[in-house]
Amino acid sequence: MFFASDNTSGVPAEIMAALARANEGYARSYGADDIMARVTAHLRSLFDAPEAVVHLVATGTAANALALATLTPPWGAVFCHRHAHIAEDECGAPEFYTNGAKLALIDGDHGKITPAALTEALATTGASGVHGVQRGCLSLTNVTEAGTMYSPAEIAALTAIAKGHGLPCHLDGARFANALVATGATPAEMTWQAGIDALSFGGTKNGLLGVEAVILFDPAKSWELELRRKRGGHLFSKHRFLSAQMEAYLQDDLWLRLATHANAMGQRLAQGIAATQGAALTHPAHANMVFANWEPGGHARLHKAGAIYYDLRPLPDGRETARMVASWNTAEDHVDRFLAALAP
Amino acid sequence: MFFASDNTSGVPAEIMAALARANEGYARSYGADDIMARVTAHLRSLFDAPEAVVHLVATGTAANALALATLTPPWGAVFCHRHAHIAEDECGAPEFYTNGAKLALIDGDHGKITPAALTEALATTGASGVHGVQRGCLSLTNVTEAGTMYSPAEIAALTAIAKGHGLPCHLDGARFANALVATGATPAEMTWQAGIDALSFGGTKNGLLGVEAVILFDPAKSWELELRRKRGGHLFSKHRFLSAQMEAYLQDDLWLRLATHANAMGQRLAQGIAATQGAALTHPAHANMVFANWEPGGHARLHKAGAIYYDLRPLPDGRETARMVASWNTAEDHVDRFLAALAP
Amino acid sequence: MFFASDNTSGVPAEIMAALARANEGYARSYGADDIMARVTAHLRSLFDAPEAVVHLVATGTAANALALATLTPPWGAVFCHRHAHIAEDECGAPEFYTNGAKLALIDGDHGKITPAALTEALATTGASGVHGVQRGCLSLTNVTEAGTMYSPAEIAALTAIAKGHGLPCHLDGARFANALVATGATPAEMTWQAGIDALSFGGTKNGLLGVEAVILFDPAKSWELELRRKRGGHLFSKHRFLSAQMEAYLQDDLWLRLATHANAMGQRLAQGIAATQGAALTHPAHANMVFANWEPGGHARLHKAGAIYYDLRPLPDGRETARMVASWNTAEDHVDRFLAALAP
Amino acid sequence: MFFASDNTSGVPAEIMAALARANEGYARSYGADDIMARVTAHLRSLFDAPEAVVHLVATGTAANALALATLTPPWGAVFCHRHAHIAEDECGAPEFYTNGAKLALIDGDHGKITPAALTEALATTGASGVHGVQRGCLSLTNVTEAGTMYSPAEIAALTAIAKGHGLPCHLDGARFANALVATGATPAEMTWQAGIDALSFGGTKNGLLGVEAVILFDPAKSWELELRRKRGGHLFSKHRFLSAQMEAYLQDDLWLRLATHANAMGQRLAQGIAATQGAALTHPAHANMVFANWEPGGHARLHKAGAIYYDLRPLPDGRETARMVASWNTAEDHVDRFLAALAP
Repeated sequence: MFFASDNTSGVPAEIMAALARANEGYARSYGADDIMARVTAHLRSLFDAPEAVVHLVATGTAANALALATLTPPWGAVFCHRHAHIAEDECGAPEFYTNGAKLALIDGDHGKITPAALTEALATTGASGVHGVQRGCLSLTNVTEAGTMYSPAEIAALTAIAKGHGLPCHLDGARFANALVATGATPAEMTWQAGIDALSFGGTKNGLLGVEAVILFDPAKSWELELRRKRGGHLFSKHRFLSAQMEAYLQDDLWLRLATHANAMGQRLAQGIAATQGAALTHPAHANMVFANWEPGGHARLHKAGAIYYDLRPLPDGRETARMVASWNTAEDHVDRFLAALAP
Repeated sequence: MFFASDNTSGVPAEIMAALARANEGYARSYGADDIMARVTAHLRSLFDAPEAVVHLVATGTAANALALATLTPPWGAVFCHRHAHIAEDECGAPEFYTNGAKLALIDGDHGKITPAALTEALATTGASGVHGVQRGCLSLTNVTEAGTMYSPAEIAALTAIAKGHGLPCHLDGARFANALVATGATPAEMTWQAGIDALSFGGTKNGLLGVEAVILFDPAKSWELELRRKRGGHLFSKHRFLSAQMEAYLQDDLWLRLATHANAMGQRLAQGIAATQGAALTHPAHANMVFANWEPGGHARLHKAGAIYYDLRPLPDGRETARMVASWNTAEDHVDRFLAALAP
Repeated sequence: MFFASDNTSGVPAEIMAALARANEGYARSYGADDIMARVTAHLRSLFDAPEAVVHLVATGTAANALALATLTPPWGAVFCHRHAHIAEDECGAPEFYTNGAKLALIDGDHGKITPAALTEALATTGASGVHGVQRGCLSLTNVTEAGTMYSPAEIAALTAIAKGHGLPCHLDGARFANALVATGATPAEMTWQAGIDALSFGGTKNGLLGVEAVILFDPAKSWELELRRKRGGHLFSKHRFLSAQMEAYLQDDLWLRLATHANAMGQRLAQGIAATQGAALTHPAHANMVFANWEPGGHARLHKAGAIYYDLRPLPDGRETARMVASWNTAEDHVDRFLAALAP
Repeated sequence: MFFASDNTSGVPAEIMAALARANEGYARSYGADDIMARVTAHLRSLFDAPEAVVHLVATGTAANALALATLTPPWGAVFCHRHAHIAEDECGAPEFYTNGAKLALIDGDHGKITPAALTEALATTGASGVHGVQRGCLSLTNVTEAGTMYSPAEIAALTAIAKGHGLPCHLDGARFANALVATGATPAEMTWQAGIDALSFGGTKNGLLGVEAVILFDPAKSWELELRRKRGGHLFSKHRFLSAQMEAYLQDDLWLRLATHANAMGQRLAQGIAATQGAALTHPAHANMVFANWEPGGHARLHKAGAIYYDLRPLPDGRETARMVASWNTAEDHVDRFLAALAP
């Protein structure tokens, strides 16, 4: 019963098979492999964005930090949610890659930024001339760190505000597939049609060994991003092994099928918790992440039953809180056993 | 006939099999996987260094830059050969990761630094008090970028000079296995017994998909290196897939067997070139890299025959120059066909 | 009627005279001047800190950024008040000098951090292992940006909490003299006896052309700070002109006399505002800065009368808000004319 | 007999008087003072560059580092002479401000870069695609660190080569006045008419307490430079005191008169040395710096006579070497006494 994170799962057979195929013969290094050309073509088609440029890296932190550094000068503020992954879980990688940009943290329920909060943050950061940092970019996350999601319309509303100040917009899509499945939006609707300029297109959490794509919808900064990637040590010599994973991921909508399963398991878990006496959801569960709280004793029963997940800080009233994540290969009976153990 | 680089080869079957095995079930993320514990134990034993700490990354540039940043303050000078990989082929990654340390470039024949040249460089850099950068660390490369190598005694002589100024010493071992095979030295003799404090232990060029180990023989800076790795975006969530590669690489001396083959092919190529009329070696060929020059016309014949390698700048007298690299899976008949094509 | 900032005033005659004296003859450069030796001795005596080291720079931003960079690694969090000068008014200089440390902003009434808020911030930042930034240092400001102040006991309570986590503590003393005058504390009581490790000892706002001292009570990092100063372009060749200002500033307690006057004028202004119908203080006014609010119309009357100060954002109920700063040479009748103009 | 550096001299009376005048009354902070507007107008007129933008800082290192960071991306190479001040005497400030750009050091006799050497350096740096750093900018120094100078035609020849690769060009003019006096060129001829885009216009070495101007002939990057200046801690609150120095410096050609004297004393010294038995000039002496060498014993006689200057490394044959710098207030009889002491 592994619900600690979607990154504790391995990868589906299609991915291993793709690696084996890619291993045959010699291939040009550093992204000049033939597979990569096909990956770029596939993603351009998928996003209906014939000029988009695609750069692969192996970690989500690299994808985010490189995208942000390309969008934001060192004296810029990156507007993001207080609990964004870039703010809490990357050990300052955005600050490192940007050479010291500042994250302007915005509060918001359930991991989401509201238009009003963004408007206020923009009014108070970057308004003091040379003395303060300047407004740099907007960074959203979908699925959010609270397991909720933005609709394309919500994203568009936020990017419109940012663009009113001339800011480019980034989307951390570590769980982009899960967000698409949950909303039913197309890749284009969720990104450039909603004002997104750069996307961290996640693969690792949804079934790859370790590949993310940075997609720039405006190719103007492609070369800068390439240089930053190399300089950050993120250009792979045997790049074909990244390309092959991504190609298999996109093939026959594998990525969407994996996310569909993960979301279904997440929903099953969420609905079961909501129906459990003494338990409640902390945030609405839109995709494959479930935040919940329950009466004291739940942790003990679950751990005894072998459930692995994150215990979070208890609520002031003593209720226990937790984060569970379902993945592409979470078994239905694991969900059911979890729910059985949770029941008082 | 791929001689462009050892990184145009794929990986041996043992590595793919290890990935498949590692893919079973759930595993803890971010280096807490069980395989990694075994990798650390194996490397400690191999290096006869029970306190050494091991951190895996996916590229050689990351390994080098993280090691250098851990050894050198921003105001330090990294003493290295003028044509070191860190100087010429990493797009300033060392400067980026160190926040602006300076590489103090030292000339030397055939890719090697001599004690006299190092002594002179140390006398002229870091001697002007607060006005100039300070002496930071020494970084050697073995096998060198010219395909030559340092014996353990040569390394010890250089590190002794550096340590006379209190400097820590780094070894870029992107082709460490090739160097061991060529010299017959043990891992310990080539590293900490010769004064090396931090090693970039290469795997990718010698048969892995993309794994290098940073080995710190003094564990004091292990936590700092972990933070730098995370901050650089080089901590893998599905870390087991790095661990598994490294474990298989070390198993039953696979790494040494791969390097033995690559070196043998390099030697066969070098000896053949030396015996070819009108052709000569540019540098002594100690391992799997061969630098050569020949009369005009050689490139045309080789390219027509399908040989792929690096054409370098012609010599002032018009002779053509080239770099060829043999790898773990270079076929003997490819070497022979290359030599046949080269012959006038 | 200049109340825009204490930095719109010039300097007292003693300072100009000191510059003239320092201008005679030749002097060694870069801090090796004889005056500097006397300045260090004087400050050590004043702070009862015989081992303290003193480095002069010309701006408060430089003093703060250099001190913070010396105390905090790039992956550290600097705990400070949300409205600290380092957070709002230095265009990211702390992030630049630290190579990307993060400011962990703490809310608090009237510009002050409470022990409870610091404890909470420490509990939630730096507690996620390698994934988040680490706890770096505490930075307090006295006089605060809201014109209030910390007593030595309050400072000691906060530094004790920080030191419970092993953190060094910095004090931004851009208005240190004003804080001493307001509290009656000695320099030692306000700093190292209260747990402060590094002090930005302000001079510019209190009557110098442009000199601040960074005082490290533990000399261990003195050389590092010197290198950072040089590397930041803040080591003056004709350093004697900084030394001379600081020497004259300390001579015969000039610095305390200047601050005493500034505070007296601030208090006169604050009391007058508090007594004005329709006007109120926004924050308690402890020193030379006064934050106030009044009914609509006040700005118009004041500006018409020639008063210069900062109009801040109006309150939600429409009341106007303002910041006024008195300086070492604010004339009493200017205060009185301001109050007369404010009165409805 | 101070010949250690032009920065061991104080400042002329005109400068002190200007400070005293500037001290009257209140003035707006941070560069919005009235004097600064006049300084900008004066420099635009002087350089015949009506769109140039001027930013004042207090040290030459700050001027150079800010200019270079504005011209060069982090992955750029700054082409400069091996012994340039930015390479040897700024403790890595260019690397710090650019976030890790690399200085590509070019050898050349007497402190000067030749067109051939620049062409070769450009051919070998920045030609390896994404793997190496890119070509960033050219930085020249006039008067050079060897006391020689470039004519406007020589500068134009070098910048033409750099611009052939699209590179912007910087001139370190710490001794710009001395270079103008020595060549007879106008400010425009020496700078933008010769292809210079950014100038560090020195004041400190030639009679100011501490002021340099960064002049951008293309105003497009003015705001970026302002932000970098603030972020570097180099924006002075009481900026009027920088402006006042610069205004007085330019007034009635004071700056040129000061440099004329310094150069005359330098020439007197150089000619005297050249005429001294057993002594010789190491470099042609074009301005106020003199590099010389003499038979063993010279140092002893000079030091005994009270001469202060830099002893440099002896030549391989044992001859002593030295650097002497004359300044705006070097007395003729000091020169003569130096020469008398040197004579065997």
